[in-house]
Amino acid sequence: MYEGAVQELIDELGRLPGVGPKSAQRIAFHILESDNEDMKRLANAIVTVKERVKFCTICGNVAEQETCSICRDPRRDPSAICVVEESKDVIAVERTRSFRGKYHVLGGSINPIAGIGPEQLRIRELLSRLSDDQVQEIIIATDPNLEGEATATYLVRMLKTIGIKVTRLASGLPVGGDLEYADEITLGRAFEGRRTVS
Amino acid sequence: MYEGAVQELIDELGRLPGVGPKSAQRIAFHILESDNEDMKRLANAIVTVKERVKFCTICGNVAEQETCSICRDPRRDPSAICVVEESKDVIAVERTRSFRGKYHVLGGSINPIAGIGPEQLRIRELLSRLSDDQVQEIIIATDPNLEGEATATYLVRMLKTIGIKVTRLASGLPVGGDLEYADEITLGRAFEGRRTVS
Repeated sequence: MYEGAVQELIDELGRLPGVGPKSAQRIAFHILESDNEDMKRLANAIVTVKERVKFCTICGNVAEQETCSICRDPRRDPSAICVVEESKDVIAVERTRSFRGKYHVLGGSINPIAGIGPEQLRIRELLSRLSDDQVQEIIIATDPNLEGEATATYLVRMLKTIGIKVTRLASGLPVGGDLEYADEITLGRAFEGRRTVS
Repeated sequence: MYEGAVQELIDELGRLPGVGPKSAQRIAFHILESDNEDMKRLANAIVTVKERVKFCTICGNVAEQETCSICRDPRRDPSAICVVEESKDVIAVERTRSFRGKYHVLGGSINPIAGIGPEQLRIRELLSRLSDDQVQEIIIATDPNLEGEATATYLVRMLKTIGIKVTRLASGLPVGGDLEYADEITLGRAFEGRRTVS
C-alpha cells in the first residue's frame, strides 16, 4: 500500500474498464512524474466531459447541445436512418464516408444474460422518428455478433409491420484479409451474399 | 472525430502509458456513462496526487511529507539499505515482509540507449547516506534484466572502494513455477546458486 494520495489514485484508476492493478500503478506513477499542466488538463477533460456532454434527444448520440451535430446538420439526408448500438459505432460509420443520412443510437443490444431486453433500448424513440413519413430506409448496423443479430432480428420484425424499407449491412470477407483465415461462418455468409460481376 | 469535449478526453487518455486509441475511447465512454460523483473523485485524485505527493529527500521514494513514512519510521533498521530502481519496487519488497531496513530509490536504471547514465540516477544521494558509518549492508535489488544488471554491476564496483558489505538478491527458479518452463538463464542461475540442504 502506498501513502494516501498515491493509493487513492491507483484505486480510482483501477475502477476504469480494462485497467488492472498493474496498469493502474503504472499510470499513477506516470501521472506523478508528468508535467503539472498536462495532468491538470487530463483532470479537467474528465470534469468537462461530465459537465458538457449529453446525449442527443433525437438520436441518442453524444452531443454538446440538446441535439448532436449530425441531427442539426441540414446537409444530412433525413430519409435514411442508420441504427447502431453505441456512439462509437456512429464514428466508425462516419469514417467510411459512405453514409450521408442520420443515425439512431440504441444504447446497447438485446442481451438476456445481462438483463437487457428491447424495452431498455431506445426503440420507442426510433419508432417516434418514423411517424412523419420522411424516413424511407432504415439501415440496421448492429454488431455482427449474437446480441447484435438478435437485436437486428427484433427490429426487422417490428419494422416490417410499419411497412418501411429495412436493410442490413452485408456480411462477408473483410477487405485486406486472407481467405484462409476467415472463420467458416464469415466465409459461408460471403458465399450466400456473392454478387454477379460480369 | 467526436465533438469537442469527448475527443479532448480521448486524446488526453491516449497519452497515458499502455492506453491505446481503442482503450482511450472505451474509458472515455465509461467516464461519460458513470456517476458524476465517481468521476469527480477520479479527477480530484489526479489533482491531489500532483499537489500533495513529493519524493522523499532522503531515499527518493514517494512521500506526502519532506521524507517518506519508511525513512521517518524509528522501528526500521538504519544499518541496511535496499537499493531499488523505482518506488513500485519498494512496495514489492515491502509486501514480502522480509526486510525491515531502509530503502534507496535510484529513479531508474543505467540504459545507454535511452541516454540514462549513472549520473542521472540518485547514486550521489546514496553515497552521502553512507558517510556516517551507520550503514553496514547495501542490498542491491535492481531488476533482473539487462539494465538492472548493468546498474548493479556499476554499484558493486563503486561500493567496493568504500569497503561496505554489498549483497544482491538471489536469482533462481520462481516459487510456484514449473521447472520445464524456466528459461535457460534462470535455470543456469538456479544451478549456480544451489544450496546444500543436508
